[in-house]
Amino acid sequence: MFIEGRNAVKEAIKSGLTINKLMVDSNFKTKKDDIINYAFENKIKVEFLSRMILDKKSKTMHHQGFIADATDFEYCTCNDILKKAKSKNEQPFIVILDGIEDPHNFGAIIRSCECAGVHGIIIPKNRSVQVNETVIKTSTGAISNMLISRVTNIKDAIEELKQNDVWVYGAELGGDNIYKQKLNRSIAVVIGSEGFGIRPVVKSHCDGILTLPLKGQINSLNASVACGIVVFEILRQREI
Amino acid sequence: MFIEGRNAVKEAIKSGLTINKLMVDSNFKTKKDDIINYAFENKIKVEFLSRMILDKKSKTMHHQGFIADATDFEYCTCNDILKKAKSKNEQPFIVILDGIEDPHNFGAIIRSCECAGVHGIIIPKNRSVQVNETVIKTSTGAISNMLISRVTNIKDAIEELKQNDVWVYGAELGGDNIYKQKLNRSIAVVIGSEGFGIRPVVKSHCDGILTLPLKGQINSLNASVACGIVVFEILRQREI
Repeated sequence: MFIEGRNAVKEAIKSGLTINKLMVDSNFKTKKDDIINYAFENKIKVEFLSRMILDKKSKTMHHQGFIADATDFEYCTCNDILKKAKSKNEQPFIVILDGIEDPHNFGAIIRSCECAGVHGIIIPKNRSVQVNETVIKTSTGAISNMLISRVTNIKDAIEELKQNDVWVYGAELGGDNIYKQKLNRSIAVVIGSEGFGIRPVVKSHCDGILTLPLKGQINSLNASVACGIVVFEILRQREI
Repeated sequence: MFIEGRNAVKEAIKSGLTINKLMVDSNFKTKKDDIINYAFENKIKVEFLSRMILDKKSKTMHHQGFIADATDFEYCTCNDILKKAKSKNEQPFIVILDGIEDPHNFGAIIRSCECAGVHGIIIPKNRSVQVNETVIKTSTGAISNMLISRVTNIKDAIEELKQNDVWVYGAELGGDNIYKQKLNRSIAVVIGSEGFGIRPVVKSHCDGILTLPLKGQINSLNASVACGIVVFEILRQREI
């Protein structure tokens, strides 16, 4: 995976992603640029190339003289997430994203999940944003500390979790008041896509639907904010 | 305030903002464009102008043939917010933003506050994003249902609230566990800026600091997500 542009490269290094090498416009060789120092500090190989060669390698043509060759994000399996919970001697705490499309939302969700102690996130292979440059950047480093499993079929993943005694809840309007449910148990919560919510076929596999009581007239929460509120309510119940 | 571009104009109409008139490229006159129909449905005056005149009026040069002349957002006073709570026979529930800079965060915060039944938001006149086109768009209509007060001095606003028996809490690291505090009272909560948190001078005027227990290693929440979690915890306590 190529990550291009000054800020994106800096965030990628910060995120703890494995950078095979950093390619830099040779005009920056003599200017002591802070990204180059930062790369040296993080023991990343720096290669100085002519602008022409960088332009040729670039996919976006917005490299600003910096292209990082990073190892693709390594997805894990659902079982890896369950193992992580076990190794921490905790009840599994999992988030399933049924088709989040906005990389900023995905990045913010990774941040919130990391903060709430979620063991892992499950996303579908299709009809969903994957871990890309923007997701990595928006997660502000949290990605390096989060297991993400990419599955062909969300339904099958839910059934696998259920077989491991995990309760699976959807978070959506029209269900049970989340504050009246017992959530301090092995749990996975499904967050729907920005435009369409949880697909009916996925919802039918859930053990229940958790709903935030809403007091407004517009009543439309951003998907990443809704996810943050739900995972922190689960955390609250686990803590007390 | 001029709002330019197809999507921005559409969102502005949806948001309930007062649109004085919609200026449209006269080339769209014969094409039955959905924004024009939408404007007619909402009884907005539509003026067809030549591309040249639109270009002259445009400030961004990205008008795509559509410029809405909207009334500037009308800010209110702190007292208006207190009155709104009183008229609903509820204890005041207020959010103070001490220097949010990202319009997307501000828009998402307006959405969350509207959903949680917050009576109003207070922002500073300086060093803060104001209600602009992006904020209106990101708030997905919630702005039309939210009182926003813009004050010269946040400290003075806090003191005014305190004189009205409102408890003022900062939301930040290093304070008391939010889940162990009694929050079902007249309350205002201060959210700090994305980069620097709450300024010390503002913090010193708070009655206490509320902290979300964080379980991760990176532990960095997005400002709008943090605000969402905090206002929903207050709502939870008000509801039970």
